[in-house]
Amino acid sequence: MLRFRALCTTGFLTQQMCQRSGWHRKSDLLRPFLSSVTLSQFKQPVAGLGMDELLSSVVPSLGTYETRDKNPPPRESQILEFMRYYRDLASQDKSVLLEKLASGYGADHELVADVGTRLLDSLQRDAATVLQIEDRLRYYLTPRYKVLLNYLSRLEGGVKFLVDLRADALDILESKVTDSPHIREMNSILKYMLSEWFSVGLLNLERVTWHSPCELLQKISEYEAVHPVRNWADIKRRVGPNRRCFVFMHGAMPGEPLVVLHVALTDHISSNIQDIVREISSMDTDEEAEKIDTAIFYSISSSQKGLQGVELGNVLIKRVLRELQGEFPHMKHFSSLSPIPGFTSWLLGALSSQAKEMSGSDIFTDAEYQEISEIVGSPPMESLKRLFSNNEWVRSERLVNILEKPLMKLCAWYLYKEKHRGYALNPVANFHLQNGAVLWRLNWMADKSPRGISNSCGMMVNYRYFPEDTSNNSAQYLATKHIEASEQILNFVSQFQKNSKL
Amino acid sequence: MLRFRALCTTGFLTQQMCQRSGWHRKSDLLRPFLSSVTLSQFKQPVAGLGMDELLSSVVPSLGTYETRDKNPPPRESQILEFMRYYRDLASQDKSVLLEKLASGYGADHELVADVGTRLLDSLQRDAATVLQIEDRLRYYLTPRYKVLLNYLSRLEGGVKFLVDLRADALDILESKVTDSPHIREMNSILKYMLSEWFSVGLLNLERVTWHSPCELLQKISEYEAVHPVRNWADIKRRVGPNRRCFVFMHGAMPGEPLVVLHVALTDHISSNIQDIVREISSMDTDEEAEKIDTAIFYSISSSQKGLQGVELGNVLIKRVLRELQGEFPHMKHFSSLSPIPGFTSWLLGALSSQAKEMSGSDIFTDAEYQEISEIVGSPPMESLKRLFSNNEWVRSERLVNILEKPLMKLCAWYLYKEKHRGYALNPVANFHLQNGAVLWRLNWMADKSPRGISNSCGMMVNYRYFPEDTSNNSAQYLATKHIEASEQILNFVSQFQKNSKL
Amino acid sequence: MLRFRALCTTGFLTQQMCQRSGWHRKSDLLRPFLSSVTLSQFKQPVAGLGMDELLSSVVPSLGTYETRDKNPPPRESQILEFMRYYRDLASQDKSVLLEKLASGYGADHELVADVGTRLLDSLQRDAATVLQIEDRLRYYLTPRYKVLLNYLSRLEGGVKFLVDLRADALDILESKVTDSPHIREMNSILKYMLSEWFSVGLLNLERVTWHSPCELLQKISEYEAVHPVRNWADIKRRVGPNRRCFVFMHGAMPGEPLVVLHVALTDHISSNIQDIVREISSMDTDEEAEKIDTAIFYSISSSQKGLQGVELGNVLIKRVLRELQGEFPHMKHFSSLSPIPGFTSWLLGALSSQAKEMSGSDIFTDAEYQEISEIVGSPPMESLKRLFSNNEWVRSERLVNILEKPLMKLCAWYLYKEKHRGYALNPVANFHLQNGAVLWRLNWMADKSPRGISNSCGMMVNYRYFPEDTSNNSAQYLATKHIEASEQILNFVSQFQKNSKL
Amino acid sequence: MLRFRALCTTGFLTQQMCQRSGWHRKSDLLRPFLSSVTLSQFKQPVAGLGMDELLSSVVPSLGTYETRDKNPPPRESQILEFMRYYRDLASQDKSVLLEKLASGYGADHELVADVGTRLLDSLQRDAATVLQIEDRLRYYLTPRYKVLLNYLSRLEGGVKFLVDLRADALDILESKVTDSPHIREMNSILKYMLSEWFSVGLLNLERVTWHSPCELLQKISEYEAVHPVRNWADIKRRVGPNRRCFVFMHGAMPGEPLVVLHVALTDHISSNIQDIVREISSMDTDEEAEKIDTAIFYSISSSQKGLQGVELGNVLIKRVLRELQGEFPHMKHFSSLSPIPGFTSWLLGALSSQAKEMSGSDIFTDAEYQEISEIVGSPPMESLKRLFSNNEWVRSERLVNILEKPLMKLCAWYLYKEKHRGYALNPVANFHLQNGAVLWRLNWMADKSPRGISNSCGMMVNYRYFPEDTSNNSAQYLATKHIEASEQILNFVSQFQKNSKL
Repeated sequence: MLRFRALCTTGFLTQQMCQRSGWHRKSDLLRPFLSSVTLSQFKQPVAGLGMDELLSSVVPSLGTYETRDKNPPPRESQILEFMRYYRDLASQDKSVLLEKLASGYGADHELVADVGTRLLDSLQRDAATVLQIEDRLRYYLTPRYKVLLNYLSRLEGGVKFLVDLRADALDILESKVTDSPHIREMNSILKYMLSEWFSVGLLNLERVTWHSPCELLQKISEYEAVHPVRNWADIKRRVGPNRRCFVFMHGAMPGEPLVVLHVALTDHISSNIQDIVREISSMDTDEEAEKIDTAIFYSISSSQKGLQGVELGNVLIKRVLRELQGEFPHMKHFSSLSPIPGFTSWLLGALSSQAKEMSGSDIFTDAEYQEISEIVGSPPMESLKRLFSNNEWVRSERLVNILEKPLMKLCAWYLYKEKHRGYALNPVANFHLQNGAVLWRLNWMADKSPRGISNSCGMMVNYRYFPEDTSNNSAQYLATKHIEASEQILNFVSQFQKNSKL
Repeated sequence: MLRFRALCTTGFLTQQMCQRSGWHRKSDLLRPFLSSVTLSQFKQPVAGLGMDELLSSVVPSLGTYETRDKNPPPRESQILEFMRYYRDLASQDKSVLLEKLASGYGADHELVADVGTRLLDSLQRDAATVLQIEDRLRYYLTPRYKVLLNYLSRLEGGVKFLVDLRADALDILESKVTDSPHIREMNSILKYMLSEWFSVGLLNLERVTWHSPCELLQKISEYEAVHPVRNWADIKRRVGPNRRCFVFMHGAMPGEPLVVLHVALTDHISSNIQDIVREISSMDTDEEAEKIDTAIFYSISSSQKGLQGVELGNVLIKRVLRELQGEFPHMKHFSSLSPIPGFTSWLLGALSSQAKEMSGSDIFTDAEYQEISEIVGSPPMESLKRLFSNNEWVRSERLVNILEKPLMKLCAWYLYKEKHRGYALNPVANFHLQNGAVLWRLNWMADKSPRGISNSCGMMVNYRYFPEDTSNNSAQYLATKHIEASEQILNFVSQFQKNSKL
Repeated sequence: MLRFRALCTTGFLTQQMCQRSGWHRKSDLLRPFLSSVTLSQFKQPVAGLGMDELLSSVVPSLGTYETRDKNPPPRESQILEFMRYYRDLASQDKSVLLEKLASGYGADHELVADVGTRLLDSLQRDAATVLQIEDRLRYYLTPRYKVLLNYLSRLEGGVKFLVDLRADALDILESKVTDSPHIREMNSILKYMLSEWFSVGLLNLERVTWHSPCELLQKISEYEAVHPVRNWADIKRRVGPNRRCFVFMHGAMPGEPLVVLHVALTDHISSNIQDIVREISSMDTDEEAEKIDTAIFYSISSSQKGLQGVELGNVLIKRVLRELQGEFPHMKHFSSLSPIPGFTSWLLGALSSQAKEMSGSDIFTDAEYQEISEIVGSPPMESLKRLFSNNEWVRSERLVNILEKPLMKLCAWYLYKEKHRGYALNPVANFHLQNGAVLWRLNWMADKSPRGISNSCGMMVNYRYFPEDTSNNSAQYLATKHIEASEQILNFVSQFQKNSKL
Repeated sequence: MLRFRALCTTGFLTQQMCQRSGWHRKSDLLRPFLSSVTLSQFKQPVAGLGMDELLSSVVPSLGTYETRDKNPPPRESQILEFMRYYRDLASQDKSVLLEKLASGYGADHELVADVGTRLLDSLQRDAATVLQIEDRLRYYLTPRYKVLLNYLSRLEGGVKFLVDLRADALDILESKVTDSPHIREMNSILKYMLSEWFSVGLLNLERVTWHSPCELLQKISEYEAVHPVRNWADIKRRVGPNRRCFVFMHGAMPGEPLVVLHVALTDHISSNIQDIVREISSMDTDEEAEKIDTAIFYSISSSQKGLQGVELGNVLIKRVLRELQGEFPHMKHFSSLSPIPGFTSWLLGALSSQAKEMSGSDIFTDAEYQEISEIVGSPPMESLKRLFSNNEWVRSERLVNILEKPLMKLCAWYLYKEKHRGYALNPVANFHLQNGAVLWRLNWMADKSPRGISNSCGMMVNYRYFPEDTSNNSAQYLATKHIEASEQILNFVSQFQKNSKL
């Protein structure tokens, strides 16, 4: 990386970007291996091997602490068989297998407890003894299945296998069909392992352009979750002039973008998404580096559910921020243009309770309430609920105008005051605040797409990044849960607070 | 011998163990490249910052189990400062710092002991409780300094920093100036961390040729510990026709070959190293894939002391074996041609005790002993000791002939019977036997270089790899310490055993 | 038909000949990329500079033969200005400029004639004198504008500029608005220059896959003239398993595929295009190298009109043939599956003359004629003409069946007997026959697309390549105009000949 | 190229530099072809095939003008055979073959003369006729052997073959064993062909670093003609910090640098070569882009004799100049630091004539002459000649001091006044003056190596490039032979002129 940086003064070209044609070097080298294994080892079916037998044959024993470096590895062919077996299982059978694996091959609790007790006794003794017992404790706390997971990680495609396996575990935990403490433990173990492998030092930052491999651009189009890509002309613009698209790649998962960040390069803090992705705009012209002073992060998507909780997005934002500062001499402003998923739902909930207990006076001024009544008829709160549910309200220009102010206040309140365990309830807000951004500006009619109206009544919000403050902001938010917000937001909140009984 | 073993538990020689090849020193010549980034970022000196203050400012607290995902990271600039500070320390100051770090920022033993005790109480309760306490125990067993190490690993160059830091820790433990249990623990923690990052799935196998970057070929020349590279013509041959040179690279240490394996492609199991690296030979012609059926692993070197104990060499051999099977349709035989470091030392030791307590009859037949006396004068054992010490014996053809048989027997005995904790004493033997190779054939006058004579009286040994047997052999050796050996070896051993009282 | 032939003397279809695939226009979307360099360098307008002044300022003089190595080059900035000026001209202004350039800056005819005369006088003298005069003659035969063209070729993008300029010249010559002998000369000079630069040794063969840059795949989709690409899933298949897509690239036109060859890998000589590009077929599975013994060249497209007459397609076929022999051990058969553009037109023309002068007996047997009459009514030839014009005939299964035999005969005749200057009239036939292929097999209902029906009543033809015979076949065809054809073709022709008075 | 430039703001990274590992992509793709041809076709010796028979079998006939596009190509196998045959010939046999080829397969002089005469007759007629006859004339002026050369150029390795063949032709012409007008013609034809292929638009500029392939660095070391590379540490410095090494590569000769330019990056116009290549200097530290404002071209070497006269060096200098302006914001000064080969020889010649005809007063002032006499004894001119011949004079510090002034004057005179056909006699001076540089500054004791003393009494000279003036200077020099020189040079010249009778 160092070497390459010295060559490319833009500083962000990664090896893989420039080695376009060498793209598959690694896999070329491996081809003989891959195909030989594939063909010779996988041709025969596993012929009725039961799940229990399979597990007991592939999960190695942990061995004693004393012989911990001398455990013979399991046969590679067996583990490859296990991988194939697992991949071919139906979803519910995967659940069964994971439960068997997690509960049947855990740590030896009595042994752990025994060593734990010995630790207490040793505390009066010398450091060497204490440390040795602790090391022993660490060792015996390793679930037996972790030995299998470790071997899996070493095979071609093994890391990806574990990422997918963790996605399965998360699905099980989320589905709540079963509340398995063992699968919860396995999920936690896997998250820890993946955090090690996907640590920042092992990630490659790459810029995606129209010259990148089609396979990569196809994946990026498919993974785009925030503002769906409509066609190839659309994705071509998103990697074209006045845009940047960056991804994190990982050596163990070649060709697989882990997180994708889309940036628009502008001369102002964008107030709506239409200018960026929806319409052919003034952006589709030559880049003029002299005029560009603002970077708008308008989409960040993660592609691997199995990497949930492994911090990638925030690191990508930080790295990209530095890249852009390096590339553009006048780059000064950094901001997201973010969706507010869940606001409309929250609003509908609020309106429901409103409807029951109180007048609209919590939300609207008398004048507003009066005008709304005129437009939607009575009872206005009920009508509004219906209009918000089906996006019909945006058809009335008058309604859109009268609702702007109150909805902005409501949304500011929602973002600033609604919490989950003390942190911002809205997940996008929580993500950017953890990163150290400032809750900066609400924008009206910023996303006019049906999706934008459904999610957040068409509003979007800028989370602004001041590079010199992000560390402090982040630490403060994490420690004290304080949200750094702009005047605009705080004014909206206090205006709302005056009236509301929420 | 113990010391030797401690140096290379993987069983192959590291750079540090061997004298350099006379090439310009790496550190001198590479400094301009290496430091370009470093210097520009750290122009200001750390201005009298004390070590204790520095440590307390950069080592984060562990945080409670409950808030374990909410710990704010330390400032990146501080950690970069710490890296620079540490790199510039003198060797003894590094010891001081590591001791302070390891002992002052360890786990909270009382807390651990407390949770450990709670585990015992919980064993009667439900699985969820047990697993939750175990998870808590795992968490509190994390030394505080590991949080720092984790942050370090995420910075540009951080993984390499930790590899070097572990090399320092190993130096301290080997030097025995201090026997610090804390540094021993830190070494163990680091080894575990590095094992995760340098797991096989994250390693890239690359073939090195004359078209590879000069920087890489220079490093490979410098790292070659087994048969030193004399000049660029020499290294050009070693990556030329009828040879293969493979390395493992890692994304977090770009441009840095971690293990290097040199292979000669032949039609027989090579019996001496001269044909391969010393002299211009029939090998330096075009490759004829049709004739090649044997791969001789004639050198394997590790470049990073800090990765000691992280299995790389054996994996590299396995991968290369498969590569070669893929490339050459007729490839059938795989064998090392290995040095026997330590044999001469062991022999001198044996002769010393011989000289004192007994006649040469343990080692030599009467006829041999008689003839040796004639050549070297009396007392023959004393003379032999002297001649082995200064390599003079090889000048006498007669002596070389008469010694062939007895030295071969002695060396077979040394390799097969001399043990350390039950495993082969000779580190190279132990390495290949752990990999599942067979102790195959001793070769007389196989390495006539002064180095070869000094190490092993000019003998080399083939460890042969039978792909279908390696798994079993390896497991058997690790579990039962059984050494799989050929007839030749076993015959030598039993012949020796008849006479010897060793 | 004549016009058609003039368009494609290489014998394969160019982009311009065919309707586009409906993709967004290249010129619109790529402008941001292409012009980034251009714009930054040429901010100032050329401010009213007249065409004559411009030409006289940029076309250097030829200089005398004696000082031919000492001519100072024109200013680069002027030539760049000229490039921009030319590119921005409207089509008719380009014509004017090219005419001015070609006629106003040609060779000095009197000087040439003078030297030519001197040559005659010198023939009796020594070789040195003769050769020197010839060299002088060669020199003075250089039109002055060629000096400009040479300088142009040396600038970034200059070769592409000349390729486009020649395309303009070809357009002028084809449009016949003017029959300029000067532009004809310039075209010939340009063709010669381009032939040098695009000579085989300077072309790079590249395989295109789904990992190739999106830009390249977009271009290949757009350039596909034979079987238009419908969407990205379609192009993905065409570079996927059981296919190969090769292009020739050239260093002076990076990112620009010059010729594209699509190959299907099969176990038989394909008899229809539907299996290959239209429908999801058994081809979209893993490749089984063992089963593949046939390569079907099913599309070859040239992308640069300006390279007309520069042999690229035939060389690409030869190179690809060797590539495939290298990749697939069992590869034995090579054949095109080619369209027959112009057959339907030719048929309609034939029917017209038929209708006037004769009964259908030239074409159909009595039984056939009878049955056709029953189906289409009277007069049958008139009805047939109408049905062939609007593709309606394929809706009648009965008609399709009854027409198969006669149309196959007619088409065989068309391909084998219809000539232009003694060579095959059909351009695709002429292309493959020049390459040394054999006119192998007509296939009924081989292209059921509207386009296929319109072009050739749904027929396609295989031109088969026997690697060992292509050289001879090609030489024979070029020298004697003999067409090597299979039994099937010859039988059809002779059957037709019996009846026909054509 | 365009695309890539957009990515790398330094603007000079070529595809190959970044695609380090893809370096052999092309040849990989071609390997199947190459090896199959090599093995199957070249195994058998050409078995007594005579040279005349071979030539007559491989040189195609030119064909008539009318059928010029229909000539069947020769068999590829025959041409490959010819290439092998020629390569294996001894040097004198190559001469014979080239003479046979050039004289036996030239143009048809009578036909040319005939057409030439017709041209004269046609001058009164229409343009179409004139141009058509000229085209015909051009065609028949093509020597038959050029058809062969064209075919050769299309084969793998063919361009390189022709480059080497021209080097052979140049050797023959230089050796003067024979003065063949035919080989002179062939040389001229080849030069023209090569000029087309090696035109600037087809050359790739690449920067060489320590990360470049070893093979490339080895070649650059070997080709370095100006200041020989001593070892690998030396070449490593020359591609290290504060240096740049650029090469031109060509697609048809992969891995073969055509011209190499070494640049030192400084803050002043270097006055000696010792600081740059001989001694470890302050240059071997980190680059500080802020301080660098001067680029010193201290070595330019061409590697292919066969490309003599094809302008590469001057174009490389211009491109590099632009590269460096792009990379370094403060780059203002450009200058060579050049050797003065031939000065000492010229001086010895001058002294010889001096010794015969005159006193030293032409060269030295009386005081100088007096002091020299004291040091070297009488007759001083004879002694000086001897001392200049064997480099002994530099051992006397006194002599070095007294000679500085007169030798500088002499050398200025030599560079500025000594001519060959009106242009500077010194070839290095002529090269830079043709490029538009200014004869800037003579430097005393600028190259203290034996080679430097032998060539030019230790002097070196700066030719300075003022980017805005080079075009004019170059044109002026070529047209009027005027040398643009600095005050220092002009003063030396006029001081010398006062005394001298030279």
